[in-house]
Amino acid sequence: MTDPVDLTARLVRCPSVTPAEGGAITLLEDLLTANGFVCNRVERGGISNLYARWGEAGNGRIFGFNGHTDVVPVGNEADWNDPPFSATQRDGRMYGRGTTDMKSGVAAFAAAAIDFVAGSPPDGSIVLAITGDEEGDAEHGTVALLDWMAERGERMDVCLVGEPTCPTAMGEMIKIGRRGSLNCRITATGVQGHSAYPHRANNPLTALVKLLHRLEATPLDNGTSHFDPSTLAITSIDTGNTATNVIPASASAMLNIRFNDRHNGAGLVNWLAEQAAAVEVDTGVRFSLDSRISGESFLTPPGALSTLVADAVEAETGRRPELSTSGGTSDARFIKDHCPVVECGLVGQSMHAVDENVEIAQIHQLKAIYTRILRAYFA
Amino acid sequence: MTDPVDLTARLVRCPSVTPAEGGAITLLEDLLTANGFVCNRVERGGISNLYARWGEAGNGRIFGFNGHTDVVPVGNEADWNDPPFSATQRDGRMYGRGTTDMKSGVAAFAAAAIDFVAGSPPDGSIVLAITGDEEGDAEHGTVALLDWMAERGERMDVCLVGEPTCPTAMGEMIKIGRRGSLNCRITATGVQGHSAYPHRANNPLTALVKLLHRLEATPLDNGTSHFDPSTLAITSIDTGNTATNVIPASASAMLNIRFNDRHNGAGLVNWLAEQAAAVEVDTGVRFSLDSRISGESFLTPPGALSTLVADAVEAETGRRPELSTSGGTSDARFIKDHCPVVECGLVGQSMHAVDENVEIAQIHQLKAIYTRILRAYFA
Ligand SMILES: [Zn+2]
Ligand SMILES: [Zn+2]
Repeated sequence: MTDPVDLTARLVRCPSVTPAEGGAITLLEDLLTANGFVCNRVERGGISNLYARWGEAGNGRIFGFNGHTDVVPVGNEADWNDPPFSATQRDGRMYGRGTTDMKSGVAAFAAAAIDFVAGSPPDGSIVLAITGDEEGDAEHGTVALLDWMAERGERMDVCLVGEPTCPTAMGEMIKIGRRGSLNCRITATGVQGHSAYPHRANNPLTALVKLLHRLEATPLDNGTSHFDPSTLAITSIDTGNTATNVIPASASAMLNIRFNDRHNGAGLVNWLAEQAAAVEVDTGVRFSLDSRISGESFLTPPGALSTLVADAVEAETGRRPELSTSGGTSDARFIKDHCPVVECGLVGQSMHAVDENVEIAQIHQLKAIYTRILRAYFA
Repeated sequence: MTDPVDLTARLVRCPSVTPAEGGAITLLEDLLTANGFVCNRVERGGISNLYARWGEAGNGRIFGFNGHTDVVPVGNEADWNDPPFSATQRDGRMYGRGTTDMKSGVAAFAAAAIDFVAGSPPDGSIVLAITGDEEGDAEHGTVALLDWMAERGERMDVCLVGEPTCPTAMGEMIKIGRRGSLNCRITATGVQGHSAYPHRANNPLTALVKLLHRLEATPLDNGTSHFDPSTLAITSIDTGNTATNVIPASASAMLNIRFNDRHNGAGLVNWLAEQAAAVEVDTGVRFSLDSRISGESFLTPPGALSTLVADAVEAETGRRPELSTSGGTSDARFIKDHCPVVECGLVGQSMHAVDENVEIAQIHQLKAIYTRILRAYFA
């Protein structure tokens, strides 16, 4: 039997701060090769990714796992109780960068897959698509793997992403979709002037406040059957004017919109432009908008895959997981264009934080859940 | 006869960039002493000021002139067509820093006073209160002169400030008051968080936009009989958050309020605090306000003094000047606590600008206006 805790610890000891591979991809490549998986390193833009497959092409269904071995920076190492790449175990927990996000998840699905194919070789294939570029720009990671697969006619019939999905307790939540995310920088250009004569100037801040107030006044929606309401957050407003008697010529604001399946990126970009145009007419201040859609919203509608995963979670933890679409973005946003995808992992509370840690029992539980899923899928 | 143009040129050649005296105060002290004025240098905080008086105390009425010899910095000297302290005369204009603001004004009232007391010695006194600290903090300038005068029982019955007061043409405008000015820094403190979960954070920018929108929604007033409407200008909003997925913990805004005689500084500080408190209750975001009143509004109601000055302007220029209270602040805000004060000067268009210049004919005209004023006052 493959010990997922030991494998997690060995992965945590690889300092794979994005975009560095840190030895983590090589470790998995060696382990999976030794256990009958055919491995391909997919190297793109300085990033190492791993495509590992057990089973012959054209023979039965293909179950895919996706995860990442890269981790976010440790910040100030002096703030950590234990060295961040030591994988120190204490009081039932393992400490270190990536223990939660998501070397434990990768270890759990790798261990589950290895033992499953050894114990009861399925009439089908298991694919492990593991990337080293999830925490960075994600340009040369899962996208590169999916491109590489498409070029070779490789595919997955369904895919499970092993990211942490539970807010506080194991088994609480799986994710069947994600909201989309749009960032927009709004630059307002007016006419500079003396603050004693505001009518001779045209204050870009007045117009910007008007526009932002307008954008925040009406909720984007009230949520949909599987999604929370879309949200709009102003993340910065900046001017840099230190002269109290000067009305500045320009100012800018940054917005982040997280949107559900009532919207798409292009529609929201249009909506922002319309709102800005209306305030332009009102004020004479010109707005320029620089929008970036980092992901569209998507949903794998509740069905065979989510039921199979939820059943496995409930059998193992006693909890029926919520089918959620909350949270940020994940690589599932790329995979959804290829096959149904769900995300199922352990408790994510300490991800990206100092003293990131995982409850060791959860790693065992997660391997057991993934094993149940494979068993049910290939039954 | 004292040539006010020559005197202006000699003053412009003194590089009296605030707080430097640059020889300007000494030049006036020598000239006025030679012409029968009793001069006192009032030195405070490294600033030279000049109190010059013609006439015996206790003998008749006292007419005061106020002005400043300090000038704002020249900026990039290479941007100037002529050296900024050369007082170059060309095509009927004199070029140089301080030609408009306000060495020509000082020269005109000094020349008028010298010639007036020589030609027809009045049954009264003429005081020239000239400061070297108007463009700077104005802490050790006119305020110091007024304190010094009060300590010695010296006073003015009326005062004329020789700042430029005409927007475009000579004789167009005199000022009988000024709006007050209040600066306020508003700091909003909320709860930092991830932009994907705005309900777990408390966005200070949302609250700040709400407060600023509220402050701008209702005009402070519609103006009064002698004042334009009060104005509120947002001069900066700053956050400094570069992470698009982070809702910041705090943000700040700067306001400048120019207020008329419907308001006073303390009342507006209270009003701002009330508005902020209302949005605090609404949002849970805390506001801290740091207010600075740089001057209260004041008015010398139209009457004997303004009529006397306006008559002189009209007789000399053919224009009946508007009795205005527009514009920024001036040292008249200090003098109004001691005696009726009006401001009357030439066209201010190029003040503080590169290639600052004055129409030479206006300097002669201004001396003539001041002479008419003295003649009428002491008639
Ligand atoms: Zn992750
Ligand atoms: Zn001035």
